[in-house]
Amino acid sequence: MESTVFSDEYFMQEAIKEAKKAFDADEVPVGAVIVCNNKIIARAHNLTERLNDVTAHAEMQAITSASNFLNGKYLDGCILYVTLEPCVMCAGAIAWAQFSKLVYGASDTKRGFNLLSEKKILHPKTEIISGILKEECAVLIKTFFQQKR
Amino acid sequence: MESTVFSDEYFMQEAIKEAKKAFDADEVPVGAVIVCNNKIIARAHNLTERLNDVTAHAEMQAITSASNFLNGKYLDGCILYVTLEPCVMCAGAIAWAQFSKLVYGASDTKRGFNLLSEKKILHPKTEIISGILKEECAVLIKTFFQQKR
Repeated sequence: MESTVFSDEYFMQEAIKEAKKAFDADEVPVGAVIVCNNKIIARAHNLTERLNDVTAHAEMQAITSASNFLNGKYLDGCILYVTLEPCVMCAGAIAWAQFSKLVYGASDTKRGFNLLSEKKILHPKTEIISGILKEECAVLIKTFFQQKR
Repeated sequence: MESTVFSDEYFMQEAIKEAKKAFDADEVPVGAVIVCNNKIIARAHNLTERLNDVTAHAEMQAITSASNFLNGKYLDGCILYVTLEPCVMCAGAIAWAQFSKLVYGASDTKRGFNLLSEKKILHPKTEIISGILKEECAVLIKTFFQQKR
């Protein structure tokens, strides 16, 4: 029996589940999963409020978790799915980790790494795909900040 | 009795002590301290090898530690001293934390955040001072990589 190969949309749905956990915890709702060989090896959501720590973005925690799982700091066989375009800090971490692929949902026009030059930040081997389930990803963020105003 | 106000060189020496700990542990030798009201509230050195985690740079750990100490995620009254020019990831974290001042020793011409545009990455209120004890900071890194070759 052949194993099912899941789509980018499937894994982005899993990242959205993480973002919803952040939303419910009154955190800026961003979620991430890391996939290796078609399996999720790390899940995380933003915890900057709970941990009182600006470095506790979903991507950063997912990277730490995946590295721990794989017992290696390079994630060059892995794909990172994240509901929002990574910020510069997270893009820097994604570069160090040498991901094979970055897939993000909604764009972040204020803090996203594309405001700088993505080619210079990310590792040259990292493929980038954006816009996967972007409406579903964006609506969480929009709703969150509308409630705050 | 007036309290002594320590110089940038004094605190950079403390960051160099941290970098030496990294050197002795066979980690890329970068050290950092965070100062608030003329007192060191966090010390850290690079632990990427021991933790198998690309996010375990000296600055990142110092930020997490200082935030924990202050029980707040914004470090806008604080100064970060680091022996090497921060990378893009760390510069992104420094921006989120809104440091008052960043002081670094040696420049990093390969991975330093100044390769991009520093004005866009760092928080606009963060003052930047570079070159403090730069030879002492640089010699650790140079010696480390010479030994690896």
